Amino acid sequence: MSKIHPIDVILHKRDGQELSRDEIQSFITGVVDGSITDARIASWLMAIFQRGLSRRELADLTSAMRYSGETFDSAPLGKFTVDKHSTGGVGDKTSLLIAPIVAAAGLADPMISGRSLGHTGGTLDKMETIPGYNTQLSLEEFGRVLAACGASMIGQTENLVPADRILYALRDHTGTVESPNLICASIMSKKLASGLNGLVLDVKTGSGAFMRRDEDARHLAELMVATGEASGTKTVALLTRMNEPLGRFAGNWVEVWECVDILRDRSHPLSADLIDLSITLAGWMLFLGGKAESADEGKLRAAALLHDGSAYAKWIEMVRLHGGDVSVFKNPAAHHRPAAQRVLKAEHAGTLTGMDCTEVGWAVQRLGAGREVPGGPVAAHAGIEMHVKLGDRIEAGQPMITLFSEEGALLDTPERMLRETLRITHEPYERQPMVRAVIAAADL
Amino acid sequence: MSKIHPIDVILHKRDGQELSRDEIQSFITGVVDGSITDARIASWLMAIFQRGLSRRELADLTSAMRYSGETFDSAPLGKFTVDKHSTGGVGDKTSLLIAPIVAAAGLADPMISGRSLGHTGGTLDKMETIPGYNTQLSLEEFGRVLAACGASMIGQTENLVPADRILYALRDHTGTVESPNLICASIMSKKLASGLNGLVLDVKTGSGAFMRRDEDARHLAELMVATGEASGTKTVALLTRMNEPLGRFAGNWVEVWECVDILRDRSHPLSADLIDLSITLAGWMLFLGGKAESADEGKLRAAALLHDGSAYAKWIEMVRLHGGDVSVFKNPAAHHRPAAQRVLKAEHAGTLTGMDCTEVGWAVQRLGAGREVPGGPVAAHAGIEMHVKLGDRIEAGQPMITLFSEEGALLDTPERMLRETLRITHEPYERQPMVRAVIAAADL
Repeated sequence: MSKIHPIDVILHKRDGQELSRDEIQSFITGVVDGSITDARIASWLMAIFQRGLSRRELADLTSAMRYSGETFDSAPLGKFTVDKHSTGGVGDKTSLLIAPIVAAAGLADPMISGRSLGHTGGTLDKMETIPGYNTQLSLEEFGRVLAACGASMIGQTENLVPADRILYALRDHTGTVESPNLICASIMSKKLASGLNGLVLDVKTGSGAFMRRDEDARHLAELMVATGEASGTKTVALLTRMNEPLGRFAGNWVEVWECVDILRDRSHPLSADLIDLSITLAGWMLFLGGKAESADEGKLRAAALLHDGSAYAKWIEMVRLHGGDVSVFKNPAAHHRPAAQRVLKAEHAGTLTGMDCTEVGWAVQRLGAGREVPGGPVAAHAGIEMHVKLGDRIEAGQPMITLFSEEGALLDTPERMLRETLRITHEPYERQPMVRAVIAAADL
Repeated sequence: MSKIHPIDVILHKRDGQELSRDEIQSFITGVVDGSITDARIASWLMAIFQRGLSRRELADLTSAMRYSGETFDSAPLGKFTVDKHSTGGVGDKTSLLIAPIVAAAGLADPMISGRSLGHTGGTLDKMETIPGYNTQLSLEEFGRVLAACGASMIGQTENLVPADRILYALRDHTGTVESPNLICASIMSKKLASGLNGLVLDVKTGSGAFMRRDEDARHLAELMVATGEASGTKTVALLTRMNEPLGRFAGNWVEVWECVDILRDRSHPLSADLIDLSITLAGWMLFLGGKAESADEGKLRAAALLHDGSAYAKWIEMVRLHGGDVSVFKNPAAHHRPAAQRVLKAEHAGTLTGMDCTEVGWAVQRLGAGREVPGGPVAAHAGIEMHVKLGDRIEAGQPMITLFSEEGALLDTPERMLRETLRITHEPYERQPMVRAVIAAADL
């Protein structure tokens, strides 16, 4: 590669030119080796924010970031590797169901997650409420768990995609987070670094989604599918509804509890939407991995693996391989030990016709289940239990939500937030489908 | 002012919103007190580069920068203060003629210049070839010189417009120099900090100009006039031709020499364009300051002040007040002591129909007259003497340019550069007027 000066890479993007693969690679190399100043990186990120990237530039940026540190080599597993990524929502615990289903079907799901920064805890926070469960495996240990049982859920290692850690921190600091191209490169570089043959993206829309507007979510989904396919990974994206918490619980241990109930085939009626979305996503993963002729057939197969106990067996195997104590799964309700709880009741009758689902997420965070600051703690036993779903008829005085916290003083503000955001009216309510659209390579 | 967070100021500009006066003031305060990181400043500058500024935002930015450090209070002078600023060109030494003309007319010209960063030396470099001339006065001493003689030419003090020093260094580092708004704010904040009642801008166009395209130069001129007027300073801009070196010499001492000849009314024929432009600009300054009924009348008065020796008397007075040795003006040619010189002759006959005037500037820089790096030295006696002007008939073997250097080894490259850029052809050549357009507040 001939010598490329970072200032030229900034000027070319600033003026709306398409950057060459070498220019992008050279810049990312300089970001990681520390030779490019934060000020230049920030200027480049804002230029990308304003000018955008072509599909080719985005694929090259994602690739340069993906290979900026260590990567997981999945080839020795000898299995089709497939993972799911969600853009985040309230009560979204599909990963905990999907990993064991996919493993039970004979595929491998190498699931590496970052720490949650948003309103509620992330997958790692949930798994860490299982006594002894170790999310901090090396990539070597990760490979051993995957070879043994086909699924592993761990945290990002220090040296995985270091370019993203640097760029993300700077984007957060300099106001360039909300760029579809930069969001796509951040998500996809980390996912692809785990060596995937297939990837199913769950892109949320609605009041609880990072991207509330349908067209923004669709645009991001299209970018991610194109980027995945350009890297040789079969990729499909589903646009799904996130206008109320998914399933029965939102929090940390309570979400594990809900999943264990489902895996043991004793699910609560309020988990229906969670189960449906999980087997839909798993169905696509089985289809991509050649375990079904279609996504619909995959969905039926995923449902069967839940009902017949094979997914639960994989779950137990995976948790044990991570050092987790599986005895807590015998009676997960008994392991739920909030210091305080309170029931929010309906003040009047009507239909639950709406809520700001992000506000519900912040209420869960204020209960202690999400982080105040990056790197801060989360409360294992804080969270909420939904007793109603959108479209339900409500009687005056009926329990709507139970709030759990590890400190009684933390209940007041979330209770007020939830009371204010739930809309009980006499308008008609039309239920919306969970999956709004499927975006595959052929649709681009 | 309510608490404004710098990230919000970045986000608002990023998304194309108009920033409030308080937002701009708060950001510039943070730039100067060091509380805003370079990365955030860079991100903001790139957002401004891409999104632009409204006239109101530009006026507010310029004002916030102007008052970011100490300013010169010209009120105690009790005179109309007026200055000229040029966007830079090759052989442009009009300042040395204009300051004494304006002072001789009874106005005050408080001229504060930055160090040249471009291809040839700046006004300070030229003045410092006069033995003893001190450009590093405090604002207090500057005021005393102005009170005594009506003109003073000094360098920027450490604490004048510190915001511009920080922003300019970052723009240079992060690729955001070429923004008309940021260029305007940089120029105007420094000029207005010297307490001007009037300002005449000489905006160059053509192959030797910073902005080569006419429409870019016109746009910058309009922004500067609007910004000056918004601050209460009478402002006018002239778009002038810079497609060949101005006057007879380009360098440092040689330019002083040329001006002294003119001030002593013994000018060389090749200085005609320089004299015409200088009295045109001075004419506008006299008109703004109420010393003439029109710019044309001002021009005639300026010419008279040159011819009758009053401007030369002011020049001598000013140089003495700065500690300069005026004895060198008796025979300025004798003070010119280059170590080496060479005459570039025409290889064939024809008409001089063109040159890349910026390339001529770089040749002068390579002779030693301009800086290699910021803060580096310039050679007092390096430079060129033009023997021909655009449109002149040329005989084969006729001297075109004499090159001067303080080191013989430095002559070869500039000679080649000059030879390659001068176009001697048999095409017809149509002379262009020096002033292409005048932009005043009424034209906006």
